[in-house]
Amino acid sequence: MSLVVVGSVAYDAIETPHGKRDRLLGGACTYIALSASFFTQVAIVAVVGSDFRPEDRALLSSRGIDLNGLEQVEGKTFFWSGVYSHDMNDRTTLQTDLNVFADFSPKLPACYTSQPYLFVGNIQPSLQRQVQVQMKNLRLVGGDTMNYWIRDYREELLATIRHWDFLLINDGEARMLSGEHNLRKAAQKILDMGPHTLIIKRGEYGAMLFRRDTLFIVPGYLLEDVYDPTGAGDSFAGGFMGYLAACGLDLQDGHFDLRELHRAVIYGSVMGSFCCEQFGVERLCTLTRKDIDRRFEEFRRFTAF
Amino acid sequence: MSLVVVGSVAYDAIETPHGKRDRLLGGACTYIALSASFFTQVAIVAVVGSDFRPEDRALLSSRGIDLNGLEQVEGKTFFWSGVYSHDMNDRTTLQTDLNVFADFSPKLPACYTSQPYLFVGNIQPSLQRQVQVQMKNLRLVGGDTMNYWIRDYREELLATIRHWDFLLINDGEARMLSGEHNLRKAAQKILDMGPHTLIIKRGEYGAMLFRRDTLFIVPGYLLEDVYDPTGAGDSFAGGFMGYLAACGLDLQDGHFDLRELHRAVIYGSVMGSFCCEQFGVERLCTLTRKDIDRRFEEFRRFTAF
Repeated sequence: MSLVVVGSVAYDAIETPHGKRDRLLGGACTYIALSASFFTQVAIVAVVGSDFRPEDRALLSSRGIDLNGLEQVEGKTFFWSGVYSHDMNDRTTLQTDLNVFADFSPKLPACYTSQPYLFVGNIQPSLQRQVQVQMKNLRLVGGDTMNYWIRDYREELLATIRHWDFLLINDGEARMLSGEHNLRKAAQKILDMGPHTLIIKRGEYGAMLFRRDTLFIVPGYLLEDVYDPTGAGDSFAGGFMGYLAACGLDLQDGHFDLRELHRAVIYGSVMGSFCCEQFGVERLCTLTRKDIDRRFEEFRRFTAF
Repeated sequence: MSLVVVGSVAYDAIETPHGKRDRLLGGACTYIALSASFFTQVAIVAVVGSDFRPEDRALLSSRGIDLNGLEQVEGKTFFWSGVYSHDMNDRTTLQTDLNVFADFSPKLPACYTSQPYLFVGNIQPSLQRQVQVQMKNLRLVGGDTMNYWIRDYREELLATIRHWDFLLINDGEARMLSGEHNLRKAAQKILDMGPHTLIIKRGEYGAMLFRRDTLFIVPGYLLEDVYDPTGAGDSFAGGFMGYLAACGLDLQDGHFDLRELHRAVIYGSVMGSFCCEQFGVERLCTLTRKDIDRRFEEFRRFTAF
């Protein structure tokens, strides 16, 4: 059973205190798919331009990712460039060229529409909804969003997430969406919007999972060096959703082991932490399942009491 | 067996988004002692002025705290006032009047000097050292410090902590003391300074414990309302040290259950979280051991996977 991932595939130019790269394979869909591919079969829906490099296509294929939904059109691939502050806590966007992504209208290959798992990356909320209605057999659907959609497309966003099982956003987005600074209060308001599960990412401070009756919190993994945090949140999403798909979890029927949901948050944290160890997707390309499980056990050790 | 606590007893004027108080019993020693008193016998060493209220003395006594080392002299008690930002992440000091605390020279009653546990609150490093050398029978000693001593009294501070089992500071102080932004690297440098155990408090984000060979991380407790964070770090210290003293733990012999040390960090976190629920020491005064153990179990629940 496959996980369908929708979102951006991009080229990034990134500068961190550890160095500079001009044209890295990036985009939310890329990170989510690569990360999830360590757990389950992944199929992507995205658009790239005529400048998309064959080696990048090969890289995605090498992880067994189904590229039938990767549309290639005339023009340039989405390009983003940014620079991180010395302590990595801030980043400044230098340039965002949507290019072919500006007209992205997700088309699902017929073989995708019967898949049970869907993760919708951060794109225009009505497009997110449009993808979901094409899926005939969903067991679990969730996604991400960002400040721009929360502020300027609120109604569309609310109409979209109402039909999601889970929403996976960061703390700033949760505060903005709910209008509450306190995250416990923010979570209650967001759960009232539809999703029965909310995951809030807090960067280096870890992540939290909220449901009506339960709360799970995990601290961040303490890296000795953060090379490049780009894509860490999306790698988290890939680990989280990939693990749930691998378990065959169906959150809707209510009969599941809550611990599996907690473990999915841990696998998300594991994948987010690996992502930061090198530039772009580099670390995700050298990673093994053994590395992942070793770090999962490390999480167990350093949180046990 | 008693825990001796040395530090400031003060009056605080505090303003938070939840209200304002003019003259609250405060000071590091007060919070540490009250918090630790839920776990073990506590004896304090501090100085107050002639304005110290009998009801505040009575409050400390009511928790069974030994006040033989609480010196009362002519003059005014240490006074601090501060105001918190809307999100509670920043506070501005409006006034600091050291008053009688300016000439504080800790004198240990004879009955204190044979006690096995010592926690030295944030005072001048040579005074901290002076207290420690008066103790004849120490099994475990640790303490706190602050930016001022780290910057302007570095040599004295290094000479003092060299003889400590543990140092308990916040993340900003750890970075300042080590000159390293990354906390894993910072911790290694600090462990080279003498203490075999380092606890780094991260406010709402929880706490971490480092030893040469182990790491323990706990996320912060997610409060629905933070009334007043004043004293939360000192309440953490009291819970941490109080629990270790109650266990009769001797970190020096190396034969102890590491889990006890982890649990001490959890009890510290529990006490810090309660402290924020009301103004000043108010919550510590209504708390029961049952409340504490219930929240300890909550920590277990929301971190288990």
